[in-house]
Order: sequence, then C-alpha cells, then structure tokens
Amino acid sequence: MENKLTFLELEQLVKDRRYQAIRDAFDYYNLVDLTNHVENLDLNEILLLFKILRKDITAEIFTYLSSEKQEDIITSFTGPQIAGMLENLYTDDIVDFLEEMPANVVKHILTNATAEQRAEINLLLSYPEDSAGSIMTTDFVELKASDTVKKSIQKIKQQGKVAETISYCYVVDINRVLVGSIKLRDILFADEDELISDLMDTDIVCVATTDDQEHTAALIRKYDVSVLPVVNNESRLIGVITADDIIDVITEETTEDIQKMAAVIPTSDSYLRTGVLEMTKSRIAWLLVLMVSATFTGLIIQGYEVQLASIPALAAAIPMIMSTGGNAGCQSSTMVIRGIAIDHMRIKDFGLVLWKELRVSLGIGLVLFVVNFFRLWIFMPSDTLMTDLVISLTLFLTVILANLTGGILPLVALVFKQDPAAMASPLITTIVDALALIIYFNLAMAFLGNLM
Amino acid sequence: MENKLTFLELEQLVKDRRYQAIRDAFDYYNLVDLTNHVENLDLNEILLLFKILRKDITAEIFTYLSSEKQEDIITSFTGPQIAGMLENLYTDDIVDFLEEMPANVVKHILTNATAEQRAEINLLLSYPEDSAGSIMTTDFVELKASDTVKKSIQKIKQQGKVAETISYCYVVDINRVLVGSIKLRDILFADEDELISDLMDTDIVCVATTDDQEHTAALIRKYDVSVLPVVNNESRLIGVITADDIIDVITEETTEDIQKMAAVIPTSDSYLRTGVLEMTKSRIAWLLVLMVSATFTGLIIQGYEVQLASIPALAAAIPMIMSTGGNAGCQSSTMVIRGIAIDHMRIKDFGLVLWKELRVSLGIGLVLFVVNFFRLWIFMPSDTLMTDLVISLTLFLTVILANLTGGILPLVALVFKQDPAAMASPLITTIVDALALIIYFNLAMAFLGNLM
Repeated sequence: MENKLTFLELEQLVKDRRYQAIRDAFDYYNLVDLTNHVENLDLNEILLLFKILRKDITAEIFTYLSSEKQEDIITSFTGPQIAGMLENLYTDDIVDFLEEMPANVVKHILTNATAEQRAEINLLLSYPEDSAGSIMTTDFVELKASDTVKKSIQKIKQQGKVAETISYCYVVDINRVLVGSIKLRDILFADEDELISDLMDTDIVCVATTDDQEHTAALIRKYDVSVLPVVNNESRLIGVITADDIIDVITEETTEDIQKMAAVIPTSDSYLRTGVLEMTKSRIAWLLVLMVSATFTGLIIQGYEVQLASIPALAAAIPMIMSTGGNAGCQSSTMVIRGIAIDHMRIKDFGLVLWKELRVSLGIGLVLFVVNFFRLWIFMPSDTLMTDLVISLTLFLTVILANLTGGILPLVALVFKQDPAAMASPLITTIVDALALIIYFNLAMAFLGNLM
Repeated sequence: MENKLTFLELEQLVKDRRYQAIRDAFDYYNLVDLTNHVENLDLNEILLLFKILRKDITAEIFTYLSSEKQEDIITSFTGPQIAGMLENLYTDDIVDFLEEMPANVVKHILTNATAEQRAEINLLLSYPEDSAGSIMTTDFVELKASDTVKKSIQKIKQQGKVAETISYCYVVDINRVLVGSIKLRDILFADEDELISDLMDTDIVCVATTDDQEHTAALIRKYDVSVLPVVNNESRLIGVITADDIIDVITEETTEDIQKMAAVIPTSDSYLRTGVLEMTKSRIAWLLVLMVSATFTGLIIQGYEVQLASIPALAAAIPMIMSTGGNAGCQSSTMVIRGIAIDHMRIKDFGLVLWKELRVSLGIGLVLFVVNFFRLWIFMPSDTLMTDLVISLTLFLTVILANLTGGILPLVALVFKQDPAAMASPLITTIVDALALIIYFNLAMAFLGNLM
C-alpha cells in the first residue's frame, strides 16, 4: 500500500461499502492522519465507519475529532453504543471531551457510563480548570512495597492493559498513600523474587490535585521525568500525568501568555477556528482601555502647545521618543515575564532585576543618546545644538525609565497575585509614553525656555 | 530522614568527611535538588564528592550542573576519570555539554572517550544546530522483525540498561532500515513465541536527522506520541527523541519566538544568568533600527507643521491614533505568528487571514470610531464636530490597516523564508504609524482645509 490515503480514496471506499478494505486501511495507515479525513466525511458516513471498525480504533479516532463532530456523533449514538465507546476511552480523554459538550449531552453520556466510570469522571470533572487533577489520568499501574518482582509483573500485565503508561509504576501503602515509584525497566531487570520495597525510589516528586498545571509542567521540566504522580491532600495516589500530556498544556499556557502580552484576551481555539465575533471580543476590550489611556498623552501634549509651536523640532521628535520608550519597555517586560514563566523568577528577585535593568538601561541609553545626537546634528541642521541635546537627553532618561518600569511591573503583578503576562508591552508603553512626555517638556522648558 | 537536605547540611557533611552519610544522602534525596547545592560548593569539595559517590550518580549530577562548573570539573579530571564519567552518560547528554565547552576541553574529552563513543559523539556533533539529529540520543532498543517475543525480551534486557527509553522499541531490517515500532507493553502482553513482525506497527511516524527540532516537536504534539525515531537519508534508524527532551526544545523555541516578537535578539541563557553586556547587545540593535525608522514618522509630522499649528486638537490626537494602531497591529501579528508556530498556518492561508482580519477590523474599527467620537464630543467641547469626525475616521482606517498589516506580514515572512516572529509588533508599529499619519493629514486637509 501507499504511505498515505487521500480523502477521496477513503470517501470512495465508504461510498462503495468496501468494509474489509476500510478495516485494512485503518489498521495500516496512521490514525491521526486518517482522522483528518474522517473529520470531513458526512455524519452518516462517519456513523457507518464507526459501526464497522473495531471499538478501540473508533474510540481513538473519536478523541482526535473536533468537539462539533464529537457532539454530532454522540447525539446520534444509542445508549449501548455510548457505553461501548466509553469503555475504550481513557478517563482523561472522556473528561477532555465532556468539558466541551453541552449539559444535556453530558447527562446523556453519564447515564450510559458504568457506576465506576461515572464516579471517576465526576471526580475528574470536579477539579478546578487548569489544575493537575483536571488533566491527570486515573489509569495507572499501582503496586505494593511487599510485592515481589514476579507478582509485580503479573499486576502490570493485568492493570497495564488500560493504563496510559507503564514505564513508571507507583507503590502505595495500605491507605493508598504514595510511598515510592519504580521504573518498569528496573522491575524487568531484577530477579523474580526481589521485593519492590528494595527496588523502589522513595524520593518522589509529585503534585497535588489542586496544583496548577503550569506548576506541573515546571516540575516535569525541572526533574526531567516523563510521568508525575498526582496525590490528594491526604497524600493518596489518585492519578498520573505524562510528559506528552504536558506538552499540550505548555503549548496552551504559552499561547495564553503570548496573547495576554499582546493585549488580547485569550481565545480557547486556534486562529483559523476562532469566529470573527469571538476574535473581535477578545481584542476590543484592551484596545478601548488603551485608547482612553492614550488620551492622557494627548492632553499632556495639548498642555504644551505654546512650547511646541515655538520650537517645531520638538514636535517632530515625539514619535521617536515615544516609540523607543515603548520598545525598550516591551523588551524588559517580555524578558522578565518569560523569566517568571520558565525560570521561577519571583518577588525575591526584585533587587536583582532592578540592578540588572539599571545597568542595561544605562548602556543602551548612552548608545542611543550618542547616535541620536549625531543623527540630529547631521540630518536636522536647522535645530539648535541645545534642542538636539534636550531630545537626546530625554531619550536617555526615557530608556532608563522604560527598562525599569518594564522590568519591575511583572514582578509587582505577582505581589497582587495577578498574571505577569498582563503587564506587558501595551500597558507599559502607555505609562512610559506619559512619563517620557513630562520629562521631555520639563527639560525643554529648563534648557530652551529662552526660545519659547 | 527529612524530606529535604539544606545546603549547609550538605556542606557540613562534606567538610566533616562523613563519606557514608554523604552516600546515603545521595541515594535518598532527589538528585535534582541536591545538584542545586552541589553547584554552590567549592570546586575541591565537588571533586571530593565525585570521588566518593557512585559513577552513575556523579554522571547524572554532572548533567544538571552549569556549563561553567562542568568545565571546571572536567579540566581538573584525569584521563581515566573522564573516561569513567563518559561511560555513564547518555550520548545526547555528552553532546549537550560538549557544545558549551571550549575547543581545547572538547579535544581533551574526546581523547579519553572510547573509539565507539568518539564515533557517536562526532556523528551527533556533526548535525546542524537545532536539527533533530543534534537532540536525539543514540541509546535505544532495536529489534528484528523475525525476533520472537522471548528473544525480544532478552534483547530489551540487554540493550535496555543503557537505553534512554524502553517504552518503545524499534524494528529494523538487515540494512538497519526502520520497518516498524512496537510498544514494550505489547511485547509484555504477548505470548512468548509470537513474532515481532505480527505485533509491530508499520505506520511509523519519524523524522530525518536534518529536520528542524520545531518540526519534531510539532509531530510529537500532532501524533501524541512519547518517542519519535530519527532516520538518516537512507531511512536507517540512528536515534530516538523522547517527549521529555522535546519539552526543553519547545520551551527554548518559544522563548526565542517571544524574544523576537519583542525585538530582542534571542539570548542563550535565562534572564538572571545573562550578563549585562550580552543583555545590552541583544536589545540595542533593534532599538537603533526602530529609532531611525521612527524618524520618518517625525518627518511626516514636521511636513504638516502649518496644519497642526492651526488646529491644535489634531496634534493632541496623534499619540492616541499611533498607539491604537500599534496595539491593533500587534494583536493581529501575535495571533498569526502563534498560529504559524502551533497550528501549521501557511502561505496558503493568506486569503483566510486577510478575510478574517478584514471582518474583525471592520468590527473593531466601528466600535472605536463610535466610542472615540463621543469621547471627543463630550470631553473636548472646543473641537469642531468635523475635527472629531476626522480623528475618528482616521482611527477607523488605521485599525483596518493595522490589522491587515499585522495579519499579513508574518505570512509574507514565510514566503521569503524569514522567521515570522521577527515581523512582530515593533516593526509593524513603525509601518502602521507612518501610514496612519499620512491618512490623518490627508483626511484633515480634505475635510478641514478651510480652517488651515
């Protein structure tokens, strides 16, 4: 067979009712690629597909479909069909898709789940959004410290069929309190009658169900592990989170941060899938706030109309001063926001940040001062040297102010338990703009007062 | 024992030469946490530690240390000590740290490696930076299609000791061409004499050694796998990349994107570890470029001095128009840049982006137009209504222009094989600023010409 099946080929197979060829295709080709095609089939064709394919295959395809298609399929399903699907899904995948379904559909699904499934699903649904509990899976391998290697391998074979990962197994005591972890490889390489208690690691890195998913990602990054156990407030093991699940979390969280830094209220879907109305809503709020704040900058300029009229060169330099200040502030805030997100920078680093930004801004300010002074001297020969000096000095002070403001505000946000990413460029630009203009006009009046 | 060992406790143990207590501590506590302490010990104390601890433990600690400490340690090591360390490191970790070492240290290390190690290291070092080849590990489990399950388990026990992961094993033919993959769990759950060829998956997702690491991350995200095999241009299997390695790559790549979007030349280290000089260099280049570009905006304003002098309200609105345009453009570019990075948006989506941005900008522009008109009408009673109209109309057109520019430029960057992230806010702001002012003054002259 070829390496890829095209959408038209699949559609033709379904239209021709070539059941065996379809089954072979779904065994042979990559399911993620095939799901892209399934997504574009008619609902009736999908339902037909789901009837003829193995249940574990349809369950996997189902998890990759868009939530609209998932809803269409589930509402067309009979009770037993839903039950069959649920049986073949990991609980974290069930929860992921339930979170996107309307309430009546959720109810319909839950009535068809087994009592045990329902309990697990309800447990997972009860955790706060973005908590470790909400992204963990409850399907893992659990051993006892007193188990022998032989018994453990039996248990792994039993529990492993439904577990999301078997590379790490977790050891619990009689109260289900997590006491150790052990790599599958260490079990495989040990003698049959060695005890798990002698083999397991006791320095367990774990997260609580209520911990933020960002914290979970940070731990996986720091300790370089591929699975993290999740415990409740009594230290009992109730789930695990795998590195590949965390990749989605990191991607999602970073997208949110980047959107906030661009003054966009985070959208839940990708650019192409987000509707025009939702996109407009996510952008308009901050634009309105910033537009009104920019009015203050306008008022400041208006207050110095007379001075501007007497020295036109002053007006011409305003955009350059404002945009340089904005850019410099944006550089600092971006670097500190990323440092907070990735390198655990905290309020305690306030002094370090202040000191570093001060030195960096002195360097940058000095270079810009010199370059700008010569630029004006050469290209604006009609300016007086004193005017050039005032503009360059303002630029110098604006850069220092911008770097300090940009570096500090994200840390201040932490003090007030706000998201540092919201303290990004647009807000800082607005603040720096206003301060820069005040400095500018005061310097102008002090040094150029005789010309006004 | 307690859950954590403090730095002072560890230092005291080392000072008191309590070797057994130190060995126990390193068996009991988490190595990542202990490494933070080791980093702060004196070099002599570290060398002492490394003498008394097991080689596999010192090797693991070594990988977590900063490159400065690594260099200090390696240059103090004797040849046999280096050889012992290399034996206990995964090749990808060796390469990671070699990349940070000066040439003479690299040479010193390579002379102490075995011939086989040297060949592997040289192979990995030869791949372009940021390629899949440069981040893969060559330690993996390799099976033959004709192997039975029993034989495979033997092979896994043999090769698995040094393999970075055993959750996935890879099947190669006689020419070492990758023909299939199989999960360890599927081997464990099968009968002893089943053949690997009957169990293995043949729809392999893999990357080439020269593929970009970002592409690798995208595949791991798309196919939801925890390991990806790496093949050379003859389809021969030569390495694997695990999901937890990819987390570091994603973090690094995103940080780079975010820095570029803030007009910072990416730094290789974290905020706190980057020196003042390096930080200054990474920021100054774009500030200079943008400062000079902002001069054009100043020149445009200067060209309309007369008009500004006759209607002062026009000057007061400039900062608001420029900053709103900048913010709107930044929102669009950020969302499209992220879409390109995460959701595979490409040049073919040009039309979709244009159409979406046009509709969003019409909505946003209209709201801002209305709000701004009433704001001016109420708070700036001295303006004529026609002036308010010109300002609001400019705002409307600027938003459309900003959204279209911001949405399109990142896609245009792709055409010229440039990084879309470099097309972010500061550059777009500068372009939009200039265009907005030209629109502004032309509208002003058309509608308010009689007042000038």
